[in-house]
Amino acid sequence: MAYINVPEGVPGIRSLVLFRPETGKPLYALAQTLLREDSPLSPAERELIAAHVSNRNNCKFCMESHAAAARCLLGLRQDIVDQTLDDPARAALSPKLKALLHIAGKVQLSGKQVMPEDIAAARDHGANDREIHDTVLIAAAFCMFNRYVDGLASWTPTDPAVYAEMGQRMAKGYVLPQQTI
Amino acid sequence: MAYINVPEGVPGIRSLVLFRPETGKPLYALAQTLLREDSPLSPAERELIAAHVSNRNNCKFCMESHAAAARCLLGLRQDIVDQTLDDPARAALSPKLKALLHIAGKVQLSGKQVMPEDIAAARDHGANDREIHDTVLIAAAFCMFNRYVDGLASWTPTDPAVYAEMGQRMAKGYVLPQQTI
Repeated sequence: MAYINVPEGVPGIRSLVLFRPETGKPLYALAQTLLREDSPLSPAERELIAAHVSNRNNCKFCMESHAAAARCLLGLRQDIVDQTLDDPARAALSPKLKALLHIAGKVQLSGKQVMPEDIAAARDHGANDREIHDTVLIAAAFCMFNRYVDGLASWTPTDPAVYAEMGQRMAKGYVLPQQTI
Repeated sequence: MAYINVPEGVPGIRSLVLFRPETGKPLYALAQTLLREDSPLSPAERELIAAHVSNRNNCKFCMESHAAAARCLLGLRQDIVDQTLDDPARAALSPKLKALLHIAGKVQLSGKQVMPEDIAAARDHGANDREIHDTVLIAAAFCMFNRYVDGLASWTPTDPAVYAEMGQRMAKGYVLPQQTI
């Protein structure tokens, strides 16, 4: 049971933004802009970064849901998701995305862990300023979302079917849930 | 020098949101809603939580700027800021705020570190659901802001006068900076 009185049977962050929609609004706007709107990284690549950071933060709710969203977006190439969660360095990803995931892993530890040589390696594989920016902000944002979800002990479903359905909805975009009676 | 091509001479997060105003908009909306708008915690109490978490994350830019904002908001009681940064348990704070800062410190480590007994201790000192929610989300949000600022190596001024001026502006609210020529 969550630490605060959120709607019953609503999982993860959805229950928290129903409790406090005023902060939910900018949180969902951030997710939509960062993960779905204009970026040189595809929505699937951005969801992989989100799932990777959530996995490192041991946040099952965010890891499972963003992995499910990545699977929906990747279609036939969805095996890449489990490979990335297992070890990005050995996954069937471009060297550029591997270098960006390495930066995301550094951000998960601390912003100060990102070294000039990590940035140089990503640039050597073709990453530009916008890709580096979006990678760092996605990784930083999931260090927030993961702590919000787990710090208030919100409900983490265990049924894989729940995440598969969630992933389908998330693949279409991030829309603030509304309280229903 | 920052890792990406941001406007020169603009410190910290301000340079990053000028680089990417689309994500800057929900980030500033989140800061304004969470730190200034309706909450049972005063703006000064919320800035103390932000400065405490930034201090634990070793993010000088966020720590100095939010400490400066807290000093502005506290007026004659501004000694409390340095006491809190030094050790919240020994600062001249209410037992409730000490319990909330303890929760914020747990969130800084990981959402999963927040234990039922941490929540119970805050409730014993009078904290309600909204205060617990806002504390956890402020702490989580600064785990994002700190990583964003340091992960891209944005400019951290060293002159205390710069932060004093910044704190005065922040005390009035969070407004997305605009690019000027």
